[in-house]
Amino acid sequence: MDSLRRLEEIFAHFPGIGPRQARRFVHYLQGRPTTQVAELVRLINEVKADTTECSRCHRYFIANELGLNEPGAKKSGTTCSICANTERDQGTLMIVARDSDLESIEKSGAYKGLYFVLGGTVPILDKEPEKKIRLKSLLEHINKFSVAENNTGTLKEIILSLNTTPDGEHTTDIVKDAIKKILAGDDINTVNSESPKMTILGRGLSTGAELEYADSETIKNALGNRR
Amino acid sequence: MDSLRRLEEIFAHFPGIGPRQARRFVHYLQGRPTTQVAELVRLINEVKADTTECSRCHRYFIANELGLNEPGAKKSGTTCSICANTERDQGTLMIVARDSDLESIEKSGAYKGLYFVLGGTVPILDKEPEKKIRLKSLLEHINKFSVAENNTGTLKEIILSLNTTPDGEHTTDIVKDAIKKILAGDDINTVNSESPKMTILGRGLSTGAELEYADSETIKNALGNRR
Amino acid sequence: MDSLRRLEEIFAHFPGIGPRQARRFVHYLQGRPTTQVAELVRLINEVKADTTECSRCHRYFIANELGLNEPGAKKSGTTCSICANTERDQGTLMIVARDSDLESIEKSGAYKGLYFVLGGTVPILDKEPEKKIRLKSLLEHINKFSVAENNTGTLKEIILSLNTTPDGEHTTDIVKDAIKKILAGDDINTVNSESPKMTILGRGLSTGAELEYADSETIKNALGNRR
Amino acid sequence: MDSLRRLEEIFAHFPGIGPRQARRFVHYLQGRPTTQVAELVRLINEVKADTTECSRCHRYFIANELGLNEPGAKKSGTTCSICANTERDQGTLMIVARDSDLESIEKSGAYKGLYFVLGGTVPILDKEPEKKIRLKSLLEHINKFSVAENNTGTLKEIILSLNTTPDGEHTTDIVKDAIKKILAGDDINTVNSESPKMTILGRGLSTGAELEYADSETIKNALGNRR
Repeated sequence: MDSLRRLEEIFAHFPGIGPRQARRFVHYLQGRPTTQVAELVRLINEVKADTTECSRCHRYFIANELGLNEPGAKKSGTTCSICANTERDQGTLMIVARDSDLESIEKSGAYKGLYFVLGGTVPILDKEPEKKIRLKSLLEHINKFSVAENNTGTLKEIILSLNTTPDGEHTTDIVKDAIKKILAGDDINTVNSESPKMTILGRGLSTGAELEYADSETIKNALGNRR
Repeated sequence: MDSLRRLEEIFAHFPGIGPRQARRFVHYLQGRPTTQVAELVRLINEVKADTTECSRCHRYFIANELGLNEPGAKKSGTTCSICANTERDQGTLMIVARDSDLESIEKSGAYKGLYFVLGGTVPILDKEPEKKIRLKSLLEHINKFSVAENNTGTLKEIILSLNTTPDGEHTTDIVKDAIKKILAGDDINTVNSESPKMTILGRGLSTGAELEYADSETIKNALGNRR
Repeated sequence: MDSLRRLEEIFAHFPGIGPRQARRFVHYLQGRPTTQVAELVRLINEVKADTTECSRCHRYFIANELGLNEPGAKKSGTTCSICANTERDQGTLMIVARDSDLESIEKSGAYKGLYFVLGGTVPILDKEPEKKIRLKSLLEHINKFSVAENNTGTLKEIILSLNTTPDGEHTTDIVKDAIKKILAGDDINTVNSESPKMTILGRGLSTGAELEYADSETIKNALGNRR
Repeated sequence: MDSLRRLEEIFAHFPGIGPRQARRFVHYLQGRPTTQVAELVRLINEVKADTTECSRCHRYFIANELGLNEPGAKKSGTTCSICANTERDQGTLMIVARDSDLESIEKSGAYKGLYFVLGGTVPILDKEPEKKIRLKSLLEHINKFSVAENNTGTLKEIILSLNTTPDGEHTTDIVKDAIKKILAGDDINTVNSESPKMTILGRGLSTGAELEYADSETIKNALGNRR
């Protein structure tokens, strides 16, 4: 395949982009001044080089958020600004599917604990959930959570914050079951302490919801959560 | 105006119908067999004749729901099957905007109390809320609620179940303020008893919600209502 | 079934209306003042009673368009204002699927001939086209066209004006073949004269079209019809 | 601004991309394996380096379409495969807004002449059309067209193939007027020959069109172009 078709193909894998728009992207770049395309390439390289996967929560972050002097320095093993922030509640861990979910929650300003990013969701009927989400890594993380680097005590709550879509709910079930299993076993460091409780986000009417079109599940939850 | 244009105009006031579709309705009726159009006319007349506005909750209902023998009998003053059902929780009153909202909630099976239908919502900036909703009637209803016909005791909770749209929230505010005023005054029959509490439906993630696209308000509420 | 459900069912057969909106129509009528519902019923009855199917073009029309004095008078056998208008070109016949298509064309002011309304289209794979469209009636109409009542001469052109959708094109093919067959036979009154030519509406770019998204068929035709 | 935000900003200028999706692109790239991002960057560089703006029609093309040995070789002054193809009709010039329109027309296989790409359209009310489209360049091109490099004779037809949107029609008017002016003048090399005729693409029903929803302009043209 020539480079034109191959580039189209790569753009067609960008989130939300189909073949036709991928072709428009290529045309667009062909028509941009050389300096602008050079800047795009430089920024992609720079962002990618500076991006680190946090060793604790697995979100992607730009190293110099942490004030590292050399953008090119080795950053493996470093933790992101949220995980490194000792003012955040070390006893609460929220599990999210993707970085964009984490950002949405940070933006709300309503959560002050720590995160773990699964890296995706498990489609219903999928046989190998471990290939879609960081399940093993999550369980290890929970295991060493309370005794690890920060040494700030016990894990008190695990909040499962996944989409209320079929895939999201399926993933919630898988993760919940797996965590229950390790909490029940001996390998979790819950010496002299209770197991952390597991919660899920409250269901109810979202902003802009119309009762006429609300499903019974949402109405039940909205009634149960009335205040 | 000729009858054709006038009929189009009337159809154009049906919910969700514009002038073009109204015209298609007229064409459609013109092409239907005479017997079918006669049946439509008969049913409209029948449904309208049999429809009563419940004297208590103000929803529309068909009188023979109640086993009335003569569909043409005078039905003013009768109450609907929900208001007449003494097994429903007489201490809880849910305020909804429209009959369709009430139906949505009934369908969920999650609510066992009584209703009051406002008959609409108050648009933001609207100067005369009393013309859009049955506010006066609601206040009278609350006033006599606990001592009225059923005589089953005290009103314990008023649930405001309006859409979480701007108009819905605005209406919630207006209704809440008006109720507070009468609850604070002497005119409510809360002799020897506490005022009823006022609640609103719980906010949170509705079914199918995606965190990435959830607004901060919804996330805050979903976190607050986690369980 | 009770009259409420039956009325919902009838509304759900109105063009473009689903079960949910049908229910909203019923609620809407239940909440209208009795006088307004009575007017609706009166107008439906009036329009239906006054509507005649033109004996020539088969479109629906209101008799008093023609200045009939009594709206309730027997109108079978009458022709609509277009068919009765001797100033229109009697040698051109346009075949359309529905009354709304005819109205669209009349509104353009670009056509001055006569019409024939098929009453629908034939879905692809449909085995019995005669049940969906007035094919037999059309062929009789063409047969007697030039010698009939108006006696104004020969049919010179038949314009097939159907949607360019799959069903429309399928119907065009069926109608064209059937007309060809009778034009080839002896039974058409084309004594001493040529057969009428058959045409279809020109294909090309419609208003608001974007070349990037135009299909090859449309582009070919637009190029062929350039001017 | 940091490189993350700047990269988001650049993606937000891609055709059809808003700020939210631009952010998702950045997240997506952050999460891709380094080798994949490297391939993307390599292909963008390669495609951009190999892309030439045709000196005649101004479309973008990849030089090795023409069999150039060195992709990095100087390509200015070269012409694209269409302009260089002497088998194409040298007497017909089609004016299009964008490369994607040209591709759409090539795909239809219905056109065998040459092209000129304007590079955009002129929005209605725009005061400086020359900044939006290659008008000066087009006029020069037409001027030297018949006597230039190919030396194959006279320009016989100029086809204006722009969208039938308001901006497209406005651009058609501007270009038509400008061409008329030079054709009327002395400066065009139409020695001993007639001026080329100017045509626009035929209007009519596009594939899938429904008569009921067709505007009068489209119906008029479809009738005028019937065949």
